[in-house]
Amino acid sequence: MVKIIIGVMGPGENATPEDCDRAYELGWRIARSGWVLLTGGRDRGVMEAASLGAKSAGGLTIGILPGRDRQGVSKAVDIAIVTDMGNARNNINILSSDVIIACGMGLGTASEVALALKSGKPTILLGDATLLGKGRASRDFFIDLAGDRTIVALSPEDAIAKARAAILTLDSET
Amino acid sequence: MVKIIIGVMGPGENATPEDCDRAYELGWRIARSGWVLLTGGRDRGVMEAASLGAKSAGGLTIGILPGRDRQGVSKAVDIAIVTDMGNARNNINILSSDVIIACGMGLGTASEVALALKSGKPTILLGDATLLGKGRASRDFFIDLAGDRTIVALSPEDAIAKARAAILTLDSET
Amino acid sequence: MVKIIIGVMGPGENATPEDCDRAYELGWRIARSGWVLLTGGRDRGVMEAASLGAKSAGGLTIGILPGRDRQGVSKAVDIAIVTDMGNARNNINILSSDVIIACGMGLGTASEVALALKSGKPTILLGDATLLGKGRASRDFFIDLAGDRTIVALSPEDAIAKARAAILTLDSET
Amino acid sequence: MVKIIIGVMGPGENATPEDCDRAYELGWRIARSGWVLLTGGRDRGVMEAASLGAKSAGGLTIGILPGRDRQGVSKAVDIAIVTDMGNARNNINILSSDVIIACGMGLGTASEVALALKSGKPTILLGDATLLGKGRASRDFFIDLAGDRTIVALSPEDAIAKARAAILTLDSET
Repeated sequence: MVKIIIGVMGPGENATPEDCDRAYELGWRIARSGWVLLTGGRDRGVMEAASLGAKSAGGLTIGILPGRDRQGVSKAVDIAIVTDMGNARNNINILSSDVIIACGMGLGTASEVALALKSGKPTILLGDATLLGKGRASRDFFIDLAGDRTIVALSPEDAIAKARAAILTLDSET
Repeated sequence: MVKIIIGVMGPGENATPEDCDRAYELGWRIARSGWVLLTGGRDRGVMEAASLGAKSAGGLTIGILPGRDRQGVSKAVDIAIVTDMGNARNNINILSSDVIIACGMGLGTASEVALALKSGKPTILLGDATLLGKGRASRDFFIDLAGDRTIVALSPEDAIAKARAAILTLDSET
Repeated sequence: MVKIIIGVMGPGENATPEDCDRAYELGWRIARSGWVLLTGGRDRGVMEAASLGAKSAGGLTIGILPGRDRQGVSKAVDIAIVTDMGNARNNINILSSDVIIACGMGLGTASEVALALKSGKPTILLGDATLLGKGRASRDFFIDLAGDRTIVALSPEDAIAKARAAILTLDSET
Repeated sequence: MVKIIIGVMGPGENATPEDCDRAYELGWRIARSGWVLLTGGRDRGVMEAASLGAKSAGGLTIGILPGRDRQGVSKAVDIAIVTDMGNARNNINILSSDVIIACGMGLGTASEVALALKSGKPTILLGDATLLGKGRASRDFFIDLAGDRTIVALSPEDAIAKARAAILTLDSET
């Protein structure tokens, strides 16, 4: 029976400490909810923090790696999927997840949020994904493009509650 | 000897008439400059308009198709590359182009602009890609994320001039 | 800590009953060895039989799906990776597995064995993968191409013993 | 109007001089027939020889590259498609071609022939693709798997005649 997968997307190199704190808590809450965590799988930033959080609660973690082998995989990843597709693997991150949570924002994350909204996946923006740089709101960019399919969360707890609501809606539609 | 390729990215279904007019002129100017045009290859919106413009000036046109065969290809595409990769083909659009011009904006285009900037490609925003909906500037979103690597153009003519400058810079770096 | 993944490749539509019996036993033995099973994830043939075998021993099963959603996934798959890449996903099957076992033979399986040998992965041929149609040995085709990197197994038990030996060799090389 | 594309597949590193001679003639004949040549695009082996042959007759050449930039592209390639997909790009080679000609044999070529036959593309085996190593016929392997969809050619001229016949059949089916 296929398990529910929650994808947590966010910056690798340029994650802020707040992004990483939120990602750790997301991972922990995802595992506590009985869901599987999916990330980009690398040993840094939001990917690593979310995976560590999920493992701290005994969860299962998947990493979708961009390279041709497992080099650079986080030690907190259980299942390493090796794609050798570079940034094109972002589409696999999205399609494999029941719900996507963007934790922080960067160019890679922006491409994932755009693909997630395009694919009709429930997409939740958290932290720096909701408020970017000089006070400009990245969420407004995506809300302009995708309307109210763009869900904004104020905290990891709020993100998980909204992920749960989205999953219930998906279930009732099936 | 590998030819210079200019990628024109923009909405398919939801392109505005202004987007399509600009795309047609971009295609025409790209062909007149002796460059090859690359698009997403489909028979609608910015992809089709740019390809028609390039053909009107006797240019060569490439279409990178998302499906498993040539269904839905624009009649103005000379070379159809069939990827069967869905939206993941957006990364091929970017990597194969020397310069990317976003003409209009949508979720697919947003993913391409994000990947283009992440890959360090010269990336030019034109038309609705510079000013989105309710007066909110999508260009500010990308400028926040990528700084002055985000080039803004005021017209197709301006975009082509800036593409030419970018190519000269690439050449002098090689 | 990344888990060891064994990929079992084989026909979907045209699997023989013997292929499926062997696949079921392979899945069971893989789970009993504490390894994770990876297949093409669909609800038929060798993919389904191996996944059912692994689940019967309480194992963890991954399915790398070709389509754009989970349609057609085997009910015995725990983790569905959705690629929307069609047959190009075969390369992900290979790169994500520590050892590949071909159980039966068909065109898709042949592409996977070729890619596995090209990638330098330990590759084990079992059952119809060792002897094809009119008495012609497909194994000879791959042995001609790849030499003694092509491992031949006489039974599922033998295949698992040879997989274990290959993993020990990989470990000692690291 | 989409142009007809003929894909020539064959070894890079391990091509024999005979493979390369045949590939050069194939490229020349493809260009003389008014078709576009598609190869794996690299500066060696069958890919380079076929591209040089096509250019010698003034043809147009496409190279589908495995890496993330144009490094290693043949100087005889006009249109470089950059995939960053490694061996998974083999599927794009196949799907983008109207007819596939395997010139020589190796593990990469074997994966392409298998995918081509699986996709139902007209697939022509030439040279070492018809007779492999110790007198073992690789063509028998593919004929066992795919029946008479596997076309065998005795010379480049014969391969082009059979490609032309296949294209006429495709046209009459459309």
